[in-house]
Amino acid sequence: MPDAEGHPERSEIELGAVLSALADPLRRTVIRELLRAEDDVERTCTSFGLWESKSTRTHHFRVLRQAGLVRQVDRGNMRGVTLRRADLAARFPGLLELIAGER
Amino acid sequence: MPDAEGHPERSEIELGAVLSALADPLRRTVIRELLRAEDDVERTCTSFGLWESKSTRTHHFRVLRQAGLVRQVDRGNMRGVTLRRADLAARFPGLLELIAGER
Repeated sequence: MPDAEGHPERSEIELGAVLSALADPLRRTVIRELLRAEDDVERTCTSFGLWESKSTRTHHFRVLRQAGLVRQVDRGNMRGVTLRRADLAARFPGLLELIAGER
Repeated sequence: MPDAEGHPERSEIELGAVLSALADPLRRTVIRELLRAEDDVERTCTSFGLWESKSTRTHHFRVLRQAGLVRQVDRGNMRGVTLRRADLAARFPGLLELIAGER
């Protein structure tokens, strides 16, 4: 069962939700930036600079989180975001390479 | 430039359009069935039995065609559909395996 913040467990991550989340170009940009960074690097949601409005940003990170692509952690006055690299690599081999390779 | 029926050339196939097309579970079913068949097998659009209404079926095959996933050929009173296997394998290595492996 997804946890209180809506993170699915590894076995619950579904291809349909992942593909829907990744159909959006700016959401793919988030994933590509996380892929380029060191393993398990934690970024703040605002650090991507992709969405100016807080509600839009919140929406897009919710889609990524609920699909199982990222993990968000509450850090008081901000939220940290990490890529669920190991979960995604185990569940959908080849997926992350596909996103990383987009020109 | 896409041809008169909206088929993009190989180099024009975009990951965003492909992921959007594949976000729909029944459209993924079409691709999975074509993947399981012999190379270049031609099916009729009605043979999948996934959409009862003609307009719905037409819509979904248009999405698949315009994204570059399938090629449709007019056969007079029906349309044949083939998977663009070589184009997709060349453009997005790993993508077809990802779809084929969905449980």
